[in-house]
Amino acid sequence: MTYCLGLNLAQGLVMLSDTRTNAGVDNISTFSKMQILEVPGERVICMTTAGNLAITQSAWGYLQEGVTLDGRRQKLADMPNMFQAARLLGAAVREVYEADGKALAAQGIGFDASFLLGGQIGTEAPRLFLVYAAGNFIEATQDTPFLQIGEHKYGKPILDRALNWDTPLMDGVKLALVSMDSTLRSNLTVGMPLDLMTADRDSLHIGRWRRITEDDPYFSMVRQGWSNALRSALVALPAPEWG
Amino acid sequence: MTYCLGLNLAQGLVMLSDTRTNAGVDNISTFSKMQILEVPGERVICMTTAGNLAITQSAWGYLQEGVTLDGRRQKLADMPNMFQAARLLGAAVREVYEADGKALAAQGIGFDASFLLGGQIGTEAPRLFLVYAAGNFIEATQDTPFLQIGEHKYGKPILDRALNWDTPLMDGVKLALVSMDSTLRSNLTVGMPLDLMTADRDSLHIGRWRRITEDDPYFSMVRQGWSNALRSALVALPAPEWG
Repeated sequence: MTYCLGLNLAQGLVMLSDTRTNAGVDNISTFSKMQILEVPGERVICMTTAGNLAITQSAWGYLQEGVTLDGRRQKLADMPNMFQAARLLGAAVREVYEADGKALAAQGIGFDASFLLGGQIGTEAPRLFLVYAAGNFIEATQDTPFLQIGEHKYGKPILDRALNWDTPLMDGVKLALVSMDSTLRSNLTVGMPLDLMTADRDSLHIGRWRRITEDDPYFSMVRQGWSNALRSALVALPAPEWG
Repeated sequence: MTYCLGLNLAQGLVMLSDTRTNAGVDNISTFSKMQILEVPGERVICMTTAGNLAITQSAWGYLQEGVTLDGRRQKLADMPNMFQAARLLGAAVREVYEADGKALAAQGIGFDASFLLGGQIGTEAPRLFLVYAAGNFIEATQDTPFLQIGEHKYGKPILDRALNWDTPLMDGVKLALVSMDSTLRSNLTVGMPLDLMTADRDSLHIGRWRRITEDDPYFSMVRQGWSNALRSALVALPAPEWG
């Protein structure tokens, strides 16, 4: 399992992923699930992945090497906008399926993969997509400015309650870290370190990229500070009159 | 689906359940999933249920009518302590399986049921059990003083962060309502109204029982107040130095 989330906010993009891969609980490894393509001043694109690592790494490889879309080989670096980038990723996933799906099925292995693709190209606003294993996709909107892949349930309530499209970017970073922490606490197949990336709207370059390790002082403060804040909020809530 | 949780705290028990049952998203109904047996001064026992309603209602019926345990028919009202009560519920579930399991399997329907059984009998401390469809069970401890059945993921992070065995009973009620609210927001198969029950330690009677409806002013305040508190806590968290 995995947990990745992306926020597309008024001020820009936040992408966060864990790094744990596992084949059973006694076979875990650390792999980054975040890939970034940056051409400063032209485009910044970030992809995070969940599911079978062989599938998701292959899809990223195809995006660099070229994928057949609309009858010709095209690369992620050539895409004129994020919608076409999402289409290309969908086409890449389908090429992986064509190449590997039958052999995986013969071994009883499902074709399990999902992707978040966030970024900004040129003058278009930042956009964020969730691409499924079938190559189809949905896009985040101002109504629902976040998308999640992998183990999404534990980290969703805090986003539902506190995140809006107007949330400032750095508050989005805090919320993403709290959402990830809630997931880390409950699902052993989601693990440290984390990869965090932000891109300020219209900057067209990576704003922040950080590998957050277990001993990261800021993340430690967020974990402890958030638990303390919740306990204080709990005490501050009035007791019921029927109590 | 369903969401029920039970807390066994230093000051006593809190049990909370939703009331939605569904057979597909276009066939939903309201059924209480909470059953209470109270003999004031002697015992107070509360059972909440998830899974197939025919199975769980039958199990409660058997507990009243008598279940074969240790070679003789016994009733919940006769159990000398909560461990024996959990054993009896396990035996009841196995009797339902004997009666209905084969016919359900013939229709392709799994034997899906789980139960929380909390209560206090006589001078023994309050205890809380989770009984599985196979009739086996686990017990809450001071390390993990809460148990959940049904859709447990959305409501778990707040309990992990803020609940301890020493949490005062009324703070436990608030936490249970927040945990339920997080679940209600994300899973359509969990629905209002709610049934809430508390039993103060050593009182041996129902402390509070309340059917909480959509227009309950206290629950509305908790929902709104909690979201406000989270947003305030978020703003109060310092931004990262690398921000």
